[in-house]
Amino acid sequence: MAEPFSFTLKAQDGSARTGAIATPSGVVRTPAFMPVGTGATVKAMFPEDVAAAGADILLANTYHLMLRPGAERIAKLGGIHQFMHWEKPILTDSGGYQVMSLAKLRRIDEAGVTFQSHIDGATVALSPERAMEVQCLLGADIQMVLDECTPFPATRDEARASLELSLRWAERSKTAFAALRTPGQAVFGIVQGSVYPDLRAQSAGALIEVGFDGYAIGGLAVGEGQSAMLDMVEVTAAVLPQDRPRYLMGVGTPEDLLQSIARGIDMFDCVMPTRSGRHCQAFTWGGKLNLRNARYAEDATPLDPDSACPAARYERAYLHHLVKSGETLGAMLLSYANVQFYQELMQAAREAIAHGRFASFAEEVSRGYRDAGEPDDSDA
Amino acid sequence: MAEPFSFTLKAQDGSARTGAIATPSGVVRTPAFMPVGTGATVKAMFPEDVAAAGADILLANTYHLMLRPGAERIAKLGGIHQFMHWEKPILTDSGGYQVMSLAKLRRIDEAGVTFQSHIDGATVALSPERAMEVQCLLGADIQMVLDECTPFPATRDEARASLELSLRWAERSKTAFAALRTPGQAVFGIVQGSVYPDLRAQSAGALIEVGFDGYAIGGLAVGEGQSAMLDMVEVTAAVLPQDRPRYLMGVGTPEDLLQSIARGIDMFDCVMPTRSGRHCQAFTWGGKLNLRNARYAEDATPLDPDSACPAARYERAYLHHLVKSGETLGAMLLSYANVQFYQELMQAAREAIAHGRFASFAEEVSRGYRDAGEPDDSDA
Repeated sequence: MAEPFSFTLKAQDGSARTGAIATPSGVVRTPAFMPVGTGATVKAMFPEDVAAAGADILLANTYHLMLRPGAERIAKLGGIHQFMHWEKPILTDSGGYQVMSLAKLRRIDEAGVTFQSHIDGATVALSPERAMEVQCLLGADIQMVLDECTPFPATRDEARASLELSLRWAERSKTAFAALRTPGQAVFGIVQGSVYPDLRAQSAGALIEVGFDGYAIGGLAVGEGQSAMLDMVEVTAAVLPQDRPRYLMGVGTPEDLLQSIARGIDMFDCVMPTRSGRHCQAFTWGGKLNLRNARYAEDATPLDPDSACPAARYERAYLHHLVKSGETLGAMLLSYANVQFYQELMQAAREAIAHGRFASFAEEVSRGYRDAGEPDDSDA
Repeated sequence: MAEPFSFTLKAQDGSARTGAIATPSGVVRTPAFMPVGTGATVKAMFPEDVAAAGADILLANTYHLMLRPGAERIAKLGGIHQFMHWEKPILTDSGGYQVMSLAKLRRIDEAGVTFQSHIDGATVALSPERAMEVQCLLGADIQMVLDECTPFPATRDEARASLELSLRWAERSKTAFAALRTPGQAVFGIVQGSVYPDLRAQSAGALIEVGFDGYAIGGLAVGEGQSAMLDMVEVTAAVLPQDRPRYLMGVGTPEDLLQSIARGIDMFDCVMPTRSGRHCQAFTWGGKLNLRNARYAEDATPLDPDSACPAARYERAYLHHLVKSGETLGAMLLSYANVQFYQELMQAAREAIAHGRFASFAEEVSRGYRDAGEPDDSDA
């Protein structure tokens, strides 16, 4: 029997919250960071290590999976959880963002978007109804409405027209989802409105009226800068209901996460830990390291003495050797260590909120990140 | 206290043997297959998974490690075992083979070889003495004399001149090793002689006179074909002492291994399981599979239902998706499954020898490999 979807708040500390989302595939502790498993794999990681790192949920990309291997094929093979050997909760995005950023866009109109696949050039149509159908075929626990991610910068008129189109798509998405969902599956709306506070409030208010299981904040981290992003998060979170999860899409650095949690965000996703891992960057409790730097060539210190991750026990000198040699194991170890660091950061945030000391915790971690500007000697 | 090096024969079945090699870092069950960890990493595998796959020993490449990160640096960091997080036995080759195959060779003379690094073009000299010094700095349990891997084809005169040079180098290598070794470390001689039975016997006899802890057969699997290779293995094994391990270098396919074990070989190394894994090929108990083939797109069968490897539990459809998408996880899973298959094959061979049924076991496995010529539909 699938559990119904629910969100339970356990503690608040200022605007920061900690709680739990129940889904058919298990419980997600919040604040939660979702590693990104674009093509049904969190890049360069075994799924059991993603779980061992502490992740309760991961994100998979509708756009990629509908193109390859195809949603119908994944459904035939038992759904996305079984396909990718991940039994815990999965959230799928709607595909809208990737259509705008990756595909050669052919047309966007009231019906939806038509685009050319970046893989084989095939023409593909994505409507709000098809986006929900694909996500239901995949069998995601939490699904997202199709929206237009408003480009940045946008004039107020452009931003308003865009959010209103997204709103009409959100209503159609909800209707389609209601007809296709299996018990316990949830759908989230997505707030747009660019960097205009009143448009953000308008978008949020209208979505609340339609009624969703949770609310995402989209169209941020697209070039507006951290300060404008946090302003929009604050404005939007203030009008979102207390009893629904709030998800800031595509964010971000450790400091972005802490600042957003302080403003009431419960969920995040970002490619940063895995992409950085493939590019020689490590996130640690002591700050960010570039393992290509020659300073690590004979450094016998473990990557992160303060992390419990098995990958963080490897010495920096060895990691330096691996990344300089282009060895896959370097990307494997750094991806694992980064994904676990993000999870340890969320776990520490949850505990700090529960104990009413989130502000000092966030300040302490952020200080390490601001001070860790190591000199770049990676050519040496 | 380091254990002394020893080789104990436990059972024989025809010419096939099973036994155990004791080294300072632990015991190696024979017949043994050594995964190749060229640059201090078995490519795309965590070291704990190499151990979990059943490997008692791995091979690291002197040539690669002396160029990057450097033998002196690895020594400073505690030696190769600590550097690459592998506590079990390690065998290092002498670097000679890679100098011939990878480097821009500058000069080969009585003193040794001088070459240009394939990494940065630096001029590097490798003598028999330096080859042993490098291996002792690395701290390998089993070390190899510097030899010239006779190119194929070679005339009888070329082959004789080459093996005689290798023999003089072997004597110098032994002397250098004796001055540098720590207790329990062993050094192996390498038999050359191309495809000339009498030269093979001459080379082996001369090396036995010098006296080594074990004997390798080099200069095979270089284009002479399986039949000529097996003839040379048989001729050489017949003159090698019963009480020393015999190591066939750079071999091979599952059938090569079984045929060579039948002729008295105890140890192997080859990049085949890991390289094939990175190129979409899987070795299974049912034969060899090319996961790119379209026939696997909706095949929900586990990669190898008869393997105990965790990676072999993944469905072929998922692996097909991963390799078609170029995802690192595909190479990770196939490398792991292949390395474990080779280890399971060696374990089964050891048991078959102990029970006096090696010939029928080898015939049964080889039949699966001969029959598994699947049609190639990888473009579909």
